[in-house]
Amino acid sequence: MGHPQLEALREDIAKILDVHSAISLMHWDLEVYMPPKAATARGLQLATLSGIGHRMLTDSGIGDAIAELKSADLDGDDALTLREIDHDYTLATKLPEDFVTTFAEDQSKAYQAWVEAREKSDFSVFQPHLERVVELLRQKADLLGYEGSPYNALVEEYERGMTAEQIRPIFAELADKQSDLVERIKNAPSQPDISWIDQDWDEDAQWDFTMEVLRDIGYDFDAGRQDKSVHPFTTNFDLYDVRVTTRIHKNEIFSGLTGSIHEGGHALYEQGFRPEDQRTILGQAASLGIHESQSRMWENMIGRSLPFWKHYASRIQSFYPGQMDGIGVDEIYKAINHVTPSLIRVEADECTYNLHIILRFEIEMGLIEGDVKVSEIPELWNAKLKEYLGLDVPSDADGCLQDIHWSHGSIGYFPTYALGNLYAAQLFEKIELDLPGLWSDVESGNFAPLLGWLREHVHQHGRRKFATEIVEDATGNAPASQPYLNYLETKYGALYGL
Amino acid sequence: MGHPQLEALREDIAKILDVHSAISLMHWDLEVYMPPKAATARGLQLATLSGIGHRMLTDSGIGDAIAELKSADLDGDDALTLREIDHDYTLATKLPEDFVTTFAEDQSKAYQAWVEAREKSDFSVFQPHLERVVELLRQKADLLGYEGSPYNALVEEYERGMTAEQIRPIFAELADKQSDLVERIKNAPSQPDISWIDQDWDEDAQWDFTMEVLRDIGYDFDAGRQDKSVHPFTTNFDLYDVRVTTRIHKNEIFSGLTGSIHEGGHALYEQGFRPEDQRTILGQAASLGIHESQSRMWENMIGRSLPFWKHYASRIQSFYPGQMDGIGVDEIYKAINHVTPSLIRVEADECTYNLHIILRFEIEMGLIEGDVKVSEIPELWNAKLKEYLGLDVPSDADGCLQDIHWSHGSIGYFPTYALGNLYAAQLFEKIELDLPGLWSDVESGNFAPLLGWLREHVHQHGRRKFATEIVEDATGNAPASQPYLNYLETKYGALYGL
Repeated sequence: MGHPQLEALREDIAKILDVHSAISLMHWDLEVYMPPKAATARGLQLATLSGIGHRMLTDSGIGDAIAELKSADLDGDDALTLREIDHDYTLATKLPEDFVTTFAEDQSKAYQAWVEAREKSDFSVFQPHLERVVELLRQKADLLGYEGSPYNALVEEYERGMTAEQIRPIFAELADKQSDLVERIKNAPSQPDISWIDQDWDEDAQWDFTMEVLRDIGYDFDAGRQDKSVHPFTTNFDLYDVRVTTRIHKNEIFSGLTGSIHEGGHALYEQGFRPEDQRTILGQAASLGIHESQSRMWENMIGRSLPFWKHYASRIQSFYPGQMDGIGVDEIYKAINHVTPSLIRVEADECTYNLHIILRFEIEMGLIEGDVKVSEIPELWNAKLKEYLGLDVPSDADGCLQDIHWSHGSIGYFPTYALGNLYAAQLFEKIELDLPGLWSDVESGNFAPLLGWLREHVHQHGRRKFATEIVEDATGNAPASQPYLNYLETKYGALYGL
Repeated sequence: MGHPQLEALREDIAKILDVHSAISLMHWDLEVYMPPKAATARGLQLATLSGIGHRMLTDSGIGDAIAELKSADLDGDDALTLREIDHDYTLATKLPEDFVTTFAEDQSKAYQAWVEAREKSDFSVFQPHLERVVELLRQKADLLGYEGSPYNALVEEYERGMTAEQIRPIFAELADKQSDLVERIKNAPSQPDISWIDQDWDEDAQWDFTMEVLRDIGYDFDAGRQDKSVHPFTTNFDLYDVRVTTRIHKNEIFSGLTGSIHEGGHALYEQGFRPEDQRTILGQAASLGIHESQSRMWENMIGRSLPFWKHYASRIQSFYPGQMDGIGVDEIYKAINHVTPSLIRVEADECTYNLHIILRFEIEMGLIEGDVKVSEIPELWNAKLKEYLGLDVPSDADGCLQDIHWSHGSIGYFPTYALGNLYAAQLFEKIELDLPGLWSDVESGNFAPLLGWLREHVHQHGRRKFATEIVEDATGNAPASQPYLNYLETKYGALYGL
């Protein structure tokens, strides 16, 4: 099958993917089971494996094969395979090895400083390290090359084809409309009674319920597993080894469940690549935004919907005997969709979440374009949080130090969360048209039709399509913000009687 | 510090160790948590990483550095480091890459055939594959080179410096004396009543007790962890990440516990390398025999001793309320040391265990030296089991197909189990002299003096000393069989009133 040189190239890539699987397993273990004293060694092991993977990808043999295959007139999946390998090779070879090493070392120091700064709630501890990271990221943008904003070179790593020029007007509209919605909700006369949530919820029962729901939505436990970690995440080592984690807090009935459904959405995506794409470059995610669209859709549009709770209300009640007397579908639905501006992104509800993202986008854009100095971040952060959410930030730890991303050198990553929300709503609008029985299926616990639609229109393509193509091909329209704004207005208008 | 070229070589080795840590983690995960559908991909990932590790070790840059450093007049740990790197490099480069690949492929097929053969209890399914493995192992011996028996080239991989010529007379004596002891025990008038063992034992209680005992003997859970697996094992990814597993069976009160103590003994060894040897070639195990001496000593000489149970009898009773009424120290001690010839090596007691090993050694020696044909194995196995243990073998599955080792191409491995028993007894004889308070310490649950002795005389040396040097330096004598035979005679003479 196929061109022999392409087959050899596929095998090279398969081995690089094997190395990345080992790296992912080491990360998974680090978050889930690794004993504390092993941290230093694990860091070194990860650095070694990353170096090996980078050297394998930038091997001149791969470059030569790509160059020759470009004149081989490939088509179909062969052509797409070559396109994607060329993309990764070109990106990797643009960064000299000493830049990669320097970046890894300075990033590692920045991460350590960020941990300390957050503990002390003192941005000044992190500041010089973040300054260095920003300097290196601006160099990286130059090395990678870009049109328009240098930010585009960075966002490209997470969301191919997306640019600051595209994001800016979308986010401006979201900021405007979502701030207004949040303000109206704050002033709405009917506020839900959520005082019943303030109880202890048996942790084993919470866990068992998350396992049941994961199974119900179609997650394959023979090709994955769930464990516990401080921050929930999804990782994959193969098409048939896609793992999720969640966290269970005794005083929170919904956080473990929504964590599991969110990660389950990510996992269903990765379990949905084509079997023939196993261990190939095509059997990988299209973008972080598409990934997030899947997690957000399952978590919010399904897991926080009324039909979902019509199905599960009696189930959740049965897990906590005597604790939910008089708490039925409506009370659960209102509580799990309760809107309240908060300081912390990962705790934000659907109405405020994008505002947290927009604030970060504006600051990191400024950093990369040179309009914002690192030293100005705390003041700017607090001013924007006041503007968008009406809250005062009591400390850097609960403000500009709350997220790990910048300490990891990840600038250009945050927008993908908001884009995921937009993609999700736009896809879901189409799903509701294509599947008129959707909500009665959900109400009876049948998620197969939804999963089937996502498999067909989103999952199976892997890297064959870019994010925008997936959205356009599935919905007939380019990615836009209106579907998400409509979704919020409809749902929260009804919930809060606006 | 040190010669700059040696430092570079140390860093090369550190990175190779990182790759092996990744491989070990993938194996651990495979045994402990991996979902079933991931098996195929994991096999490919392991093959890729093994290939990478082998290429890194056989890189000509390492050979050049070794050659130059040999004239650099190194001393102390520098000289030992060079000696050990040279050893591994020389061994690895003696095997051409196509031999390594062929061997891995044929071994993989042999393993599959063994699994099938064992399920069907039909040696003929395995026979042609084992013939191929034996043929390749004889080639391997020729490639590696040897003096005396070709078996020596193979045993060298597991127990450096040990030879068939040394093992043969030792095993002959053990076979003679242990068969006689087993015969006398069988005919002893006082046989213990172990009928009380036949109960259901709460699995959580079993688990909790294994965790408590592991902690008590000095296993550092901040630098390791215990999980469950079908077959217990110990693995390490770093000095500060040494993990054990055990298995818990509802109808067996002791098997989980003895498994944990056995693996705990292995783990204490690996947690006992010097901190300055972290991520170096010196911070590795001296040999499988030394490794096994540590697991066997903790499992048998400590975990099956009367003082140990004087300390733990009331604890274990408290884990199973109402189930051990009238079962005190003596009953536990007799039950956990009950001698009964059995078909299966891994279930064998202290008196019969070596006989299982000797049987295997004699057959695999014959295979490698050419005196035994693979087709003769079942008949030979059954005849030897009758001779040494007086038992008839009802099926190949419970006979010559029970162990995985040959299907893995591991010939020369089995003797290290028996050598471990001998080393353990010889070291322990010295320990009892050096630590007169040993048994009163054990009786009060204080294992620190014993661990301290082992740390000083065995653990900390890593690969600085060969197995025989460790035993000689610690005891003043070359490895011998008499201490183990004395240990058995004394312990079981008293237990069975011989």
